Amino acid sequence: MTDTAAAVASRTGDTTPAELDEAAAAARRAFAVTVASTADERAAWLRATADALDAARDELVPLADEETRLGSARLTGEVARTTAQLRLFADAILEGSYLEATIDHPDPTTIPPRPDLRRMLRPLGPVAVFGASNFPFAFSVAGGDTASALAAGCPVIVKGHPAHPRLSRRTAEVVADALVGAGAPEGVFAHVEGHETGIALVQHPEIRAVGFTGSLHGGRALFDLAQRRPDPIPFYGELSAVNPVLITGAALEARADELAAGLAGSFTLGAGQFCTNPGVVLVPAGSGFAERVAAAVAATSAVPMLTDGIAAAFANGVAGLAGHADVEVVAGDPAQQPGSGAPVVLRTTTAAVLADPGALLHECFGPSTLIVEYADAADALAAVRAVGGSLTATVHAQPGEEVAPIVEVLAEVAGRVLFTGWPTGVAVSWAQQHGGPWPATTTIHTSVGVTALRRFLRPLAFQDAPDAALPAELRDANPLGIPRRVNGVLVLPGHPEPVA
Amino acid sequence: MTDTAAAVASRTGDTTPAELDEAAAAARRAFAVTVASTADERAAWLRATADALDAARDELVPLADEETRLGSARLTGEVARTTAQLRLFADAILEGSYLEATIDHPDPTTIPPRPDLRRMLRPLGPVAVFGASNFPFAFSVAGGDTASALAAGCPVIVKGHPAHPRLSRRTAEVVADALVGAGAPEGVFAHVEGHETGIALVQHPEIRAVGFTGSLHGGRALFDLAQRRPDPIPFYGELSAVNPVLITGAALEARADELAAGLAGSFTLGAGQFCTNPGVVLVPAGSGFAERVAAAVAATSAVPMLTDGIAAAFANGVAGLAGHADVEVVAGDPAQQPGSGAPVVLRTTTAAVLADPGALLHECFGPSTLIVEYADAADALAAVRAVGGSLTATVHAQPGEEVAPIVEVLAEVAGRVLFTGWPTGVAVSWAQQHGGPWPATTTIHTSVGVTALRRFLRPLAFQDAPDAALPAELRDANPLGIPRRVNGVLVLPGHPEPVA
Repeated sequence: MTDTAAAVASRTGDTTPAELDEAAAAARRAFAVTVASTADERAAWLRATADALDAARDELVPLADEETRLGSARLTGEVARTTAQLRLFADAILEGSYLEATIDHPDPTTIPPRPDLRRMLRPLGPVAVFGASNFPFAFSVAGGDTASALAAGCPVIVKGHPAHPRLSRRTAEVVADALVGAGAPEGVFAHVEGHETGIALVQHPEIRAVGFTGSLHGGRALFDLAQRRPDPIPFYGELSAVNPVLITGAALEARADELAAGLAGSFTLGAGQFCTNPGVVLVPAGSGFAERVAAAVAATSAVPMLTDGIAAAFANGVAGLAGHADVEVVAGDPAQQPGSGAPVVLRTTTAAVLADPGALLHECFGPSTLIVEYADAADALAAVRAVGGSLTATVHAQPGEEVAPIVEVLAEVAGRVLFTGWPTGVAVSWAQQHGGPWPATTTIHTSVGVTALRRFLRPLAFQDAPDAALPAELRDANPLGIPRRVNGVLVLPGHPEPVA
Repeated sequence: MTDTAAAVASRTGDTTPAELDEAAAAARRAFAVTVASTADERAAWLRATADALDAARDELVPLADEETRLGSARLTGEVARTTAQLRLFADAILEGSYLEATIDHPDPTTIPPRPDLRRMLRPLGPVAVFGASNFPFAFSVAGGDTASALAAGCPVIVKGHPAHPRLSRRTAEVVADALVGAGAPEGVFAHVEGHETGIALVQHPEIRAVGFTGSLHGGRALFDLAQRRPDPIPFYGELSAVNPVLITGAALEARADELAAGLAGSFTLGAGQFCTNPGVVLVPAGSGFAERVAAAVAATSAVPMLTDGIAAAFANGVAGLAGHADVEVVAGDPAQQPGSGAPVVLRTTTAAVLADPGALLHECFGPSTLIVEYADAADALAAVRAVGGSLTATVHAQPGEEVAPIVEVLAEVAGRVLFTGWPTGVAVSWAQQHGGPWPATTTIHTSVGVTALRRFLRPLAFQDAPDAALPAELRDANPLGIPRRVNGVLVLPGHPEPVA
């Protein structure tokens, strides 16, 4: 075990302020190395981390299952997703486009005259990561925020989630060992614990950005701290989403059972503990769709939720909805068993949600869905707008139906618009977008997919630099062979660039 | 004159809350059109605006000169810069890369399985722009923030700067007329006035982002309001910069007079009223450089500053520096004439600035520069770090000198690193970066150059969409012929894309 891993392992229980300072200072020292590291080096660090996590899978999954109750099948798949994510970021930085390398040769005819300007992105510095409870691998210690920050060249300090402390510590050991073993500098990765530690971390002078996945309440509080610093820093929070689904009359007529089964599978998946859970489903009035969904979940029994706190919050949220004068419980018992979640299907109308959006259109984290019956398309779209910012929005229509007016509204409120299927399940890829208008996320970026890299980089331009003083990415000869834009023209590697 | 222009023209004096609501509602209605507009259409709007401003130049420049005292030569050049900027954004949106169009075909082998995902950027919505006093064209009503927001597809509401109200109103008329005349929707552009109006604008529910150029004090206050909204919005502020310059002993030995003349020209340009003004210049101790700079400005007399308030703040700032026990006045009179600015050259040491950075290393907006003498390179670099976030940082060295350790530190604190020349003069191009660590700017973006577009866009992904339901930018046939990334591979227009 390296010194770093030993230091990580010794931090059980709340990190002290002195330990946090030490981790931050080590991250700053590590940044002096990572900022100058090559994509080759960082890709090797990421791949070594992925390999180490895969190798530790049979130890980590049971630990995760004990702490999260998510089951070993789901957790095993999540490890694979997590390591594939690390490897995708390795591929992406080697490809090089993410640097946005741009070269303008001098042009004395412009106003003002243009000198030689060369721009690329550069890592921000040490990054704080707050993982989520519901994805103990993919959105936690070695999750997407950590992977994208390390890929960008930023050291990471993870604030471990209290819902899975032993898994967090052990994962942190594996990650720190793998990174340093692959040649990354000491201090490039640390794991800290404790509520007060998290508050101090967001305000720590060495921290240059924060990645956060969690609740609206907790996220907003940390966001506010980050913005109120003497030097505000970017706070990339993924907070809350209702994920509206709109089903047209034609779709319901053609495939009501398929849709009911699909919805039932999606909102109960992982006890509904997904940020992309479909919380509001708009269907034509009088269609009986809610009863079909009720039938589809009839055989589903209560399952343990991630924490007793989440279960209690869910029970409370569902009871609040069920107690609303305009809401009918179609299936399930709003009075949930302690610690567990059982599916609840609720029904109301667009008139009710438009009259009282604050009470009816908030996220209810767990296995419930609110079927909202609409009289016409205008009503349905008004309800979607009332939901507001979401990670996803879905339309189910029939081939040939005119969906443009619906898509227009879905695109307004969400970061990802689905045309079939259900929003749970977030592929990690180049084109993925996991973020949307407030309160889905706090910024105009994504926390999943290759472009998550952009969050931890800032642009830097060099003016009239001698070739030898430039980073390799911007030298005339393009020694790294990356895509670049020269005098406004995008040029692929191996093709001639415009000359001065 | 169109209705819009007439409405704009009628708004002299403070905008009322009802008028602001009306402008915001009109901007929201206009957004329904601009969000679906083509790049061709928006390019035509931008070019028509540029043409109209060029045509109005002989009317606008005298008006600007009356209100800003900047002189007609400088102001005529600034109109050309402003219209070239509008045309560059037109070119950029037609090229299409700014949309980051990305397509991933389905892949059932990934974990989780990958559906068909297609991502591009989409305009945010109505944008508020706060112009600066020191560039009444290029950073004001029709400046870079307005141009980039309109290019992105966002309606703009400009809060006119009180230092040039008549120019702002008249420019706004020209812009509104040109936009609507070229087919842009009514409400796409508005001009409002008044301090309270600005405060209300940043908090207005319809406003989705803010572009701001101005003081640290005013910018921070508006930034805080934007972040404390129930739905925080991006606040792109360019606030304050000291722009350190480091001159090596070898460079000074080789070309002291040239450097002194260059510095004198740069810090007195436009009465020093540039955000890129070189405020701190590090030179070897005992080099007599300050005296050379003093000689170079000896013939320069006081010139009227933009406003009496700016002149008073400058006099106050210079007097504060001059009154510091460790600062020597080498040239000029810290007791400035009311309303005017005359060059002041001050001298101190790295020991002094490191002992009292708060007093010595802040922006002093006007024609002054602080020559800081250093004993060795480590001292000099410590002083650069103490300056902190800046728009620019400059090194003057001799060919063959090892500058890597210097560049490393300059890159840490600034958004643009210069190797010769002086930081005033910000070319508008693809590779420009005008932004840097706090307090230079509030975010990881630029306010000048093509990539300023990214500030007013957010990503949107489509999942499993039928081809006909997709925006043209993401359809299989790539009808707009824009660069796209398909299955991770960047493909230029006219080349075959990977198939599913």
